[in-house]
Amino acid sequence: MPNRNAAGRSGKRTTKQAASTKKKKTKATKKTIFHQPIRIGFIGGLNEIGKNMTMFEYDGDIVLLDCGSTFPEPDMLGVDLVIPDFTYLFRNADRVRGIIITHGHEDHIGSLPFLLKQMKAPVYATRLAVGLIESKLEEHGILQECELHEIEPGDTFRLGAFNIEAIHVNHSIPDALAYALTCDAGTVIHSGDLKIDTTPIDGQMIDLARFAELGKEGVLCYLADSTNAEKPGYSASESTVGQSFETLFPKAGNKRIIVATFASNIHRVQQIINVAISQNRKVALSGRSMEKVMAIGRDLGYLDVPDDVIIPLSDINKYPPEQLLLITTGSQGEPMAALSRMATSDHRQVTITANDYVIISATPIPGNEKTVSRVVNDLIKLGAEVVYERMYDVHVSGHAYQEELKLMLGLIQPKYFIPVHGEQRHLQKHKMLAEAMGIPSSNIIISDIGRVVEVSEDAIRSAGTIPAGRVFVDGYGVGDVGSVVMRDRTRLAQDGIMTVVVTMDSDTSEVISGPDIISRGFVYVRESEELIEDAREIAMWAIENCLNNDIRDWVTIKSRMRDEISRLIYERTKRSPMILPIIMEV
Amino acid sequence: MPNRNAAGRSGKRTTKQAASTKKKKTKATKKTIFHQPIRIGFIGGLNEIGKNMTMFEYDGDIVLLDCGSTFPEPDMLGVDLVIPDFTYLFRNADRVRGIIITHGHEDHIGSLPFLLKQMKAPVYATRLAVGLIESKLEEHGILQECELHEIEPGDTFRLGAFNIEAIHVNHSIPDALAYALTCDAGTVIHSGDLKIDTTPIDGQMIDLARFAELGKEGVLCYLADSTNAEKPGYSASESTVGQSFETLFPKAGNKRIIVATFASNIHRVQQIINVAISQNRKVALSGRSMEKVMAIGRDLGYLDVPDDVIIPLSDINKYPPEQLLLITTGSQGEPMAALSRMATSDHRQVTITANDYVIISATPIPGNEKTVSRVVNDLIKLGAEVVYERMYDVHVSGHAYQEELKLMLGLIQPKYFIPVHGEQRHLQKHKMLAEAMGIPSSNIIISDIGRVVEVSEDAIRSAGTIPAGRVFVDGYGVGDVGSVVMRDRTRLAQDGIMTVVVTMDSDTSEVISGPDIISRGFVYVRESEELIEDAREIAMWAIENCLNNDIRDWVTIKSRMRDEISRLIYERTKRSPMILPIIMEV
Repeated sequence: MPNRNAAGRSGKRTTKQAASTKKKKTKATKKTIFHQPIRIGFIGGLNEIGKNMTMFEYDGDIVLLDCGSTFPEPDMLGVDLVIPDFTYLFRNADRVRGIIITHGHEDHIGSLPFLLKQMKAPVYATRLAVGLIESKLEEHGILQECELHEIEPGDTFRLGAFNIEAIHVNHSIPDALAYALTCDAGTVIHSGDLKIDTTPIDGQMIDLARFAELGKEGVLCYLADSTNAEKPGYSASESTVGQSFETLFPKAGNKRIIVATFASNIHRVQQIINVAISQNRKVALSGRSMEKVMAIGRDLGYLDVPDDVIIPLSDINKYPPEQLLLITTGSQGEPMAALSRMATSDHRQVTITANDYVIISATPIPGNEKTVSRVVNDLIKLGAEVVYERMYDVHVSGHAYQEELKLMLGLIQPKYFIPVHGEQRHLQKHKMLAEAMGIPSSNIIISDIGRVVEVSEDAIRSAGTIPAGRVFVDGYGVGDVGSVVMRDRTRLAQDGIMTVVVTMDSDTSEVISGPDIISRGFVYVRESEELIEDAREIAMWAIENCLNNDIRDWVTIKSRMRDEISRLIYERTKRSPMILPIIMEV
Repeated sequence: MPNRNAAGRSGKRTTKQAASTKKKKTKATKKTIFHQPIRIGFIGGLNEIGKNMTMFEYDGDIVLLDCGSTFPEPDMLGVDLVIPDFTYLFRNADRVRGIIITHGHEDHIGSLPFLLKQMKAPVYATRLAVGLIESKLEEHGILQECELHEIEPGDTFRLGAFNIEAIHVNHSIPDALAYALTCDAGTVIHSGDLKIDTTPIDGQMIDLARFAELGKEGVLCYLADSTNAEKPGYSASESTVGQSFETLFPKAGNKRIIVATFASNIHRVQQIINVAISQNRKVALSGRSMEKVMAIGRDLGYLDVPDDVIIPLSDINKYPPEQLLLITTGSQGEPMAALSRMATSDHRQVTITANDYVIISATPIPGNEKTVSRVVNDLIKLGAEVVYERMYDVHVSGHAYQEELKLMLGLIQPKYFIPVHGEQRHLQKHKMLAEAMGIPSSNIIISDIGRVVEVSEDAIRSAGTIPAGRVFVDGYGVGDVGSVVMRDRTRLAQDGIMTVVVTMDSDTSEVISGPDIISRGFVYVRESEELIEDAREIAMWAIENCLNNDIRDWVTIKSRMRDEISRLIYERTKRSPMILPIIMEV
């Protein structure tokens, strides 16, 4: 297999051949020579969906696979984004030889800017992923300092002790990769996010032959996507969605068609555009990420769209509804996305009427069922016809089902197996599938984020931990919203705050002004004047009581005020607002 | 049909025959005499799932059907419960003749205490529902003042202008009712929550014959449950779940079995107990509502359980796992419920191990998918085997599917139809089903909460609005958390609060003390001392700037402080905490 040097595409990109020059031929060895084990550390992606990041360590060299982010859960108040804990990597930055990227989804590349702001490491990814990463690094203003390498399936390159091989797989974004990492201790395959699509839109079926070859040569350990390990059978091909669109679009008749889907699913977008063209509809794009990904996709040649087909969103009123098709973001019901704004009549350019035929070409990600449902209801209220069920096969998953997972295991025939990319239920099901394929239970490890697994010819075993967890991004702050701040936010969210301010003479300890009470998020003050007045009185009483007992320590006085007010408020309202006593000294 | 007087069961209950004595014979009339229309007002339950409440008004008399509550959405911060807006009812309390209850689920009875605390009205319900309502009113300390009437299917009674008839239906709680309300203008049927179960556990199939009879006599308007209007076919019978348990329990082998289900689904609980007995397992109950409903169910004769079968939860360690079965609450992943506490090793009496076989006998209610999934993952991590998919038919819905809905429409043959109990998508689908059954589109109205529909022999039409919406219960407060308080809580939850206090001389306007800054839920202060210090300085600068420009109006000074600090904080952190400036006057 030829070793293609990773070559840069744009001036911004540093291309570097250093890594590949120190290449030496390595193979999975089955001799009885003693080799140290490969250390596989899980920085993210296990027992969670999102922020995928795996670390491979051998002979002092570290290679990272993916660097994803995830969206905050509803209880992570005020958080914009959740990224992995990079502590171990920052501590060992000098040993990180590179970051290999499987594909350009946020849960695989979203944290790169946060990592690369703090440490340098070359990044390897296919053309589309590089395009998406560039755009992300540019937004963070660090593109110039970063080293990006564009690679292709079949490429091999050296990163420290590891020989890396990129292998083509199918997924819901073009040009997704699996990687084989070979070092003296053997070959490890991480197949990223994948499905087996025998009729993909770009004609490039997953490179099963290469997996089979590697399997014959001997694979020490295999790590595989468990997302759909609970689903029996095979996932349907992406091309079936195009067929659905062909039968579905004519049902729209004279109505405008609006299709919501993931911007990154370029093959889906291509199919929508193809059917739109065949049915004489112009296409307009709605949503920032849709416009961005489309621009990158067309620029890099992933999308084949005649120029006269796409019209600006601002021009849609120049065409009758039956000649229009809109592709929009918001298929997950995200409140700020274009489709949600259309549904709540809050979109500047698109007004939903009974002349709209809306297709939601996606399945709600767990946790989004209710927001998607709300958007559907709102669209229907505005008179639109909405196709949102699976009745027309308007969506297929990008992740392998059980029979595909078994097929991969059968081809790769790994000695050891680690199910990854899933919650506990998915990992367990995937383990059962592997057992059914003949892999002994003792050769399978279900790991967890923060855990390190050591693999050698002789054994697979859990071997210690590394720092891992959720780091919150809030505005410019990365990691400064910790448990104390979050606990305060949770408390404030529940019952609000009551600030009690009193000015006291530092010499005489006399109350000069106050106590004044100001509350927010607790009660509507105009309707609760009596309660507030009683709280004021009890605060005064608490202070006087302290002073009468010769307590002049202000920490104690504040604590007494807090306790007395808390008790009063709880007795009267059964609520526990945060009480914030402040003593001003004059 | 005999008119059974509603008779009380317990001493606490006021029984009242007054209503039925003023009975006079009425019938759905088809003569051309002019009648005023029946007004049907939707106080809750349309375009939402939960807090069902429908108002029927004729000739000055009001009858209410159900009085439900709903759980708060994640964005309703600090809210314990959501109830309907009763404004219209309080204003017209003297005209409310009674409240008829279809069944004892929270979304049909949960708001009764809040209504009955403010106004008097007799409540009519079957024995089980009365038992559950009594327990609820007792908790609120108002049982003695309330008038409850126990009725049975087939009972008829008079409430003002309406003749009321209770009709037996099947649902996921025993003794559910539909009601036919007849007045001079005709007969309206509201079938509550229903399914058609030909083999229900209590042997009492829905009274289809009576619906058919009423249909033949002529039904002016029909209101029906739309929950499953999107689901084709028929719902499975509750008894199929029992069959599943029979084949499933032996798979547990020597393990302890834990079944999570809704406490109110007494027939489900009965089936679990029956199979447990046949397989020689003792049964323990876990969860407050499970114990409460079981006690009421056994007391009222709905549950047939030999005394030696039930053991206290504290005794479970006296039996080996293979002789135990636990029935628990928490099937929706509710964080405080027993199953969640078991899953997080936080349950005092139940410790989950590899010796546990857990069955979740429920489907996640939309919005709960993720919490249920979390519980499943946690249980699996502790080693338990968990049955949570539909692979074994461990749950059936209590709501009619499409073919059942069509059958009801076919029997009742209403002139007008109003789909209720559902979101917009469900209501629309239900409307389509009715159209497919031959009801003209113009004879169907999709209404909304807060709307009134007028129905007469001649027409159905929307006729104005009544106050309706969400009233928040927070602690003892009912309705005092309004939009201002909620907006503050949302803001506080996002970025916390920063309080700026300064003491000023009221004569000289000099700053005597401060400005001091105290923040909560914004940043971890020890790591942000510089930022806080800068905020302090800019606050001081804002004050001085005002004073130098001869601005001594404290509202203006506070507003300047807020603006300057906001700008600084946003520039530096991209966050917008609430800024609360306080000036203490001495």
